[in-house]
Amino acid sequence: MARTSGSHSQITGPRLRAAALRLFARHGYAAVSMRQIAAEVGVQAGALYNYIPDKQGLLADLMRSHLEELLAAWDLEPKGTGPLDALEAFTRFHIRFHLERPDAVFIAYMELRNLDPRNFAEIEALRKRYETGLEDILRAGRAAGVFDLPDTKLATLAVIAMLTGVTTWYRPGGRLSAERVAALYWEMVRKAVGA
Amino acid sequence: MARTSGSHSQITGPRLRAAALRLFARHGYAAVSMRQIAAEVGVQAGALYNYIPDKQGLLADLMRSHLEELLAAWDLEPKGTGPLDALEAFTRFHIRFHLERPDAVFIAYMELRNLDPRNFAEIEALRKRYETGLEDILRAGRAAGVFDLPDTKLATLAVIAMLTGVTTWYRPGGRLSAERVAALYWEMVRKAVGA
Repeated sequence: MARTSGSHSQITGPRLRAAALRLFARHGYAAVSMRQIAAEVGVQAGALYNYIPDKQGLLADLMRSHLEELLAAWDLEPKGTGPLDALEAFTRFHIRFHLERPDAVFIAYMELRNLDPRNFAEIEALRKRYETGLEDILRAGRAAGVFDLPDTKLATLAVIAMLTGVTTWYRPGGRLSAERVAALYWEMVRKAVGA
Repeated sequence: MARTSGSHSQITGPRLRAAALRLFARHGYAAVSMRQIAAEVGVQAGALYNYIPDKQGLLADLMRSHLEELLAAWDLEPKGTGPLDALEAFTRFHIRFHLERPDAVFIAYMELRNLDPRNFAEIEALRKRYETGLEDILRAGRAAGVFDLPDTKLATLAVIAMLTGVTTWYRPGGRLSAERVAALYWEMVRKAVGA
């Protein structure tokens, strides 16, 4: 009765990843065992390693996928014309993308401490690449005289922290729609960069 | 040879709290046992409950102390004259206070999920009180025509997220001093609120 067809295993891997994401976000990486992840999906603990690497590899995988998806989605995002349009696109994109993935965002920030040095370096490089995307916009805007910014590096970190913060309090059905929140944040970001 | 003097127990409680803070920040609340906390300080596991409550009570204690210290320190902070001075004071205070306590900050944000409902409500109320302190400044500034802000609630959350973000990347001895970072953030906050 064992099902070992290709299609089954192609479904089990993603389901295990989704379960791990949920469990890590709720309990923390260190508190979750591979056995729990297997049980969540109804896979025998012994069969787990057919689908996913060890726990450390799994954590790195989840963070890598999250950041690669982020980078790919931002690459595809229409950016309008010029630095002001691009910054508005970034603001709305960042809020929307992160609000759709609260568990992945939580893990991406919280579990960095649990990556081994090699994985940490790889994940940091991806995160840095995303930050550089924003910093390039800020530099271009400053060079064009559109933004008034003494330090583009700091402004990059400040804007990202401000926008990511939305994930800690936003709830669908609350006082403001995600669209309205993004519009209000865009106004604050625009002013903050002196545009 | 057992030492049970008052002064010893007055030292052991704070040492256990400090060890718990360090261990929770490094490994996460769910992954740390009371036994590990005891071992860190060289106290017998059986004697632990003479000094500190159970693990849940300990977590709530650590968060409560952090927020009560934050509120007390902000109360004592000189705030100058008028909303613009007060906002600058808040910006510099918030960065300084949080940079001095990276472990407590990390736990205050990350381990909310592990508080039981009663403790969560209490901690949220303290955090809300701190946020209200900033929102009162923003409202006063808007009423006085000093700030241009469509939504003081959102601006409060945006400013706090932006400033707290400094704790995730700032390292002493880096490119910028804490003083210089605070000055650059103050410039961004001032612009963001339209002052």
